[in-house]
Amino acid sequence: MCRFLAYQGEPIFLETLVCASEHSLVHQSLHAAECKTATNGDGFGIGWYGERDIPGLFRDLRPAWSDENLRSVCTQVRSGQFFAHVRAATGTVTSRANCHPFAHGRWMFMHNGQIGGYTQIKRRLEAALPDEFYHARQGTTDSEVLFLLALAEIAKGSPPPEAVAATLGFTKMLMRDASVDEALRFTAALTDGETLYCFRVACDDRPASLYFSEQPGAVTVASEPVDRGGDHWQAVPRGAFITVRRGTATTVAPFPWAAEAVAA
Amino acid sequence: MCRFLAYQGEPIFLETLVCASEHSLVHQSLHAAECKTATNGDGFGIGWYGERDIPGLFRDLRPAWSDENLRSVCTQVRSGQFFAHVRAATGTVTSRANCHPFAHGRWMFMHNGQIGGYTQIKRRLEAALPDEFYHARQGTTDSEVLFLLALAEIAKGSPPPEAVAATLGFTKMLMRDASVDEALRFTAALTDGETLYCFRVACDDRPASLYFSEQPGAVTVASEPVDRGGDHWQAVPRGAFITVRRGTATTVAPFPWAAEAVAA
Amino acid sequence: MCRFLAYQGEPIFLETLVCASEHSLVHQSLHAAECKTATNGDGFGIGWYGERDIPGLFRDLRPAWSDENLRSVCTQVRSGQFFAHVRAATGTVTSRANCHPFAHGRWMFMHNGQIGGYTQIKRRLEAALPDEFYHARQGTTDSEVLFLLALAEIAKGSPPPEAVAATLGFTKMLMRDASVDEALRFTAALTDGETLYCFRVACDDRPASLYFSEQPGAVTVASEPVDRGGDHWQAVPRGAFITVRRGTATTVAPFPWAAEAVAA
Amino acid sequence: MCRFLAYQGEPIFLETLVCASEHSLVHQSLHAAECKTATNGDGFGIGWYGERDIPGLFRDLRPAWSDENLRSVCTQVRSGQFFAHVRAATGTVTSRANCHPFAHGRWMFMHNGQIGGYTQIKRRLEAALPDEFYHARQGTTDSEVLFLLALAEIAKGSPPPEAVAATLGFTKMLMRDASVDEALRFTAALTDGETLYCFRVACDDRPASLYFSEQPGAVTVASEPVDRGGDHWQAVPRGAFITVRRGTATTVAPFPWAAEAVAA
Repeated sequence: MCRFLAYQGEPIFLETLVCASEHSLVHQSLHAAECKTATNGDGFGIGWYGERDIPGLFRDLRPAWSDENLRSVCTQVRSGQFFAHVRAATGTVTSRANCHPFAHGRWMFMHNGQIGGYTQIKRRLEAALPDEFYHARQGTTDSEVLFLLALAEIAKGSPPPEAVAATLGFTKMLMRDASVDEALRFTAALTDGETLYCFRVACDDRPASLYFSEQPGAVTVASEPVDRGGDHWQAVPRGAFITVRRGTATTVAPFPWAAEAVAA
Repeated sequence: MCRFLAYQGEPIFLETLVCASEHSLVHQSLHAAECKTATNGDGFGIGWYGERDIPGLFRDLRPAWSDENLRSVCTQVRSGQFFAHVRAATGTVTSRANCHPFAHGRWMFMHNGQIGGYTQIKRRLEAALPDEFYHARQGTTDSEVLFLLALAEIAKGSPPPEAVAATLGFTKMLMRDASVDEALRFTAALTDGETLYCFRVACDDRPASLYFSEQPGAVTVASEPVDRGGDHWQAVPRGAFITVRRGTATTVAPFPWAAEAVAA
Repeated sequence: MCRFLAYQGEPIFLETLVCASEHSLVHQSLHAAECKTATNGDGFGIGWYGERDIPGLFRDLRPAWSDENLRSVCTQVRSGQFFAHVRAATGTVTSRANCHPFAHGRWMFMHNGQIGGYTQIKRRLEAALPDEFYHARQGTTDSEVLFLLALAEIAKGSPPPEAVAATLGFTKMLMRDASVDEALRFTAALTDGETLYCFRVACDDRPASLYFSEQPGAVTVASEPVDRGGDHWQAVPRGAFITVRRGTATTVAPFPWAAEAVAA
Repeated sequence: MCRFLAYQGEPIFLETLVCASEHSLVHQSLHAAECKTATNGDGFGIGWYGERDIPGLFRDLRPAWSDENLRSVCTQVRSGQFFAHVRAATGTVTSRANCHPFAHGRWMFMHNGQIGGYTQIKRRLEAALPDEFYHARQGTTDSEVLFLLALAEIAKGSPPPEAVAATLGFTKMLMRDASVDEALRFTAALTDGETLYCFRVACDDRPASLYFSEQPGAVTVASEPVDRGGDHWQAVPRGAFITVRRGTATTVAPFPWAAEAVAA
């Protein structure tokens, strides 16, 4: 299990949420409260949109809590749309390319969850990537494959939530074919720099936690509230996703599993 | 607080104690039981005596629990005298040169403790190092200074326990001069590859934990027992040190504080 | 282009060839003489056989010339069969899992060369891996795929040189299908800890350099001679491979391209 | 020998000079033209002033040429005053804290040069640091000591060039006392975020190269010109320093060695 946060709103220094708040992401890297593994020390990443079309990425393998580069970059960089992630590796090699967030063109993604029986379906999942996205793969995680599969759907014209639903539906189908008993759990964030989608779904009703706070000019989404005051935090319901868009109220909607997948 | 272990006996693969046992040092790096900080993820080190006069050192900054190099080296290297250490940094920069164990010539040292008010006495402590040892300094930790000061005493002819006692006595004097209220706590291991000395002392009677197990052909000393069976583990008494030497029973003796220091 | 060396013979400390000799591999990492890129600073690796069935691996991303862990491990470890490699990355992400040598079970492999138009055939090449080897993939390099494909052939019963020839023949076929003009060049070493095979082949007669020195109790193979005295070094002929086996004279033989591949 | 560049002018993306230009600093990290060591692969650093009083720092140990974090940060960050440095280590341990630039409060510094016989005078040089600056020391390089000594002079009220001159004068005195024959060479940049001072001095008339280009709204200073067009680059004369200040023409002045030091 990992911990992450996403922000959209008035540009703020990344440190506000990543390092400085009471239960900041860096604090969660050492003392996560709502997940089995309290320690998320197997690398971290931040991704942010600034003046460029594509996001900036800074990912490294030292624990977030003692990385002076992370602290310095977060102190200097101000952004109106950013992601941050701390990782507890579960089997995959730790390398920068396996740290979240992942970026491709103007899209960015991060994930906290699991694909049950991944080794049994890995091959078919990767084979499903169209060439462009197959070659874009930098690392070896299941999360990156899900991201690229969803982008391939988006490239075909699907709205992002449907693209993600198609990806997870396909994944579930492969899992069923391979008689996998373990669950698919997907708590994740996806953005093109304009609209932010955050998902909290699982096929066993035990998706990882996800909260959001909507305040004037600032929507924050996080695995765990980053402060303790906390009235303003609400849980993203299980089986739902939220859409965050500048100048529009955040919406909560049921995850659009295809009937086929729902039936599964 | 850190966690460490030292071994002397029949040559064994390092993995036996470092990675494989139930509560191995790598396990303690993530789940330490007897110290305030359960996570010791700010680097690790192993040091071992093989066929050379000087020990080998392998120290790195990734968490021990996910470092494949550490696992591989521990699987291959067999030694009759080795140290291993996992670090929870307390203010000092994390760098390889700040990871324990430290080595100088044939000597090796590691430490788990604190020098209260270190910044107030750092300067005088470093100034006390004779030239040879001043130049030997590789990193910036207080532990390395204590090691080099003790070696300077040994070079003058002191038996190692007395050399350590003189070093700590001097340190306490500087602390008193600087009106430091915080404690000096020193749980540490020192060896020349032949004889192993392990210390558990503090000026406030709260030294970090230390245990040892003496079995035929194998003495293990560790911050926490590395297995759970555990009858064979005994605590090193507070204010004591043990001497481990091949072919001789391990001895426990009171730490030889000088009268002056004891009076303090 | 990378630089590498392989040794089989009386156990020696790795440092003899890796760090200490006049034109040691560490020296070559900064001053390679016989390749386009003089600097091989994108990671290094050593792999050695000791008392275990499987080789030890130590790979890291800092330049070999300034890595104190590399130097210390090479000073302490003695082996009768080892590999060492310094890398100049060519496009792939630098990560430990992308550093040579690669190991799988008791087999070990390293490579210096290129698969022309790799991105065009990557997908089909990876798809050709049987499940067991598909899942064994740790990194993202072309070299690791070639290694695993060869192991898959060996698992089916092929002698190692034929397994490598089948792998390269298949690779060339894919390149031809994809109308790739660039060359396939393969200078590589493969061993199971007993027999060492070193290859120097290319489809354009410009394989990377490879030399070997056979002396009583010591066969060394290297991209460039590791000393300057050098009468005892002979070039592995283009299009040939050598077989090194304890108690037997090293043999040089033409690389067993299949007729189909030769015709290509 | 290292390579560095400093910029003051209209805010530009760091990548313009660090990664993108024909002979950018990243290019110089692999192919320096005007120094003995063509390879500067022992770490890098960037430091920049943004919206904060203190500069941001990002320093790491991988070679600059293959660090994807460096490239991404330089692509996103825009600054009107920044430093960048690539390092060829000369004896000191490679660690982040030993990478340039160094920062303290709002000041930033980087250096390319040497203090002849440093180990002979290290101790006296460090002892000369006032407490505040002694404790500010993060790493173990000679360059950081020079920086902190100069800051101590500035804190006493000296203008920066005089503070640097006093520091170097003192250093030369210590070298003379220790009968050091090797040269003191100091090519360096110092700034408080407003005014940029760049020095090119040595006691043997062989200071490392330094050039500057003054164009409307953009002054660039670099070990080697970062493009090949090059009419606009002029060498900083030996024994001189330049002062770069917004809205003022860059001035070149002789380095203010004290008479005592000049006589030396």
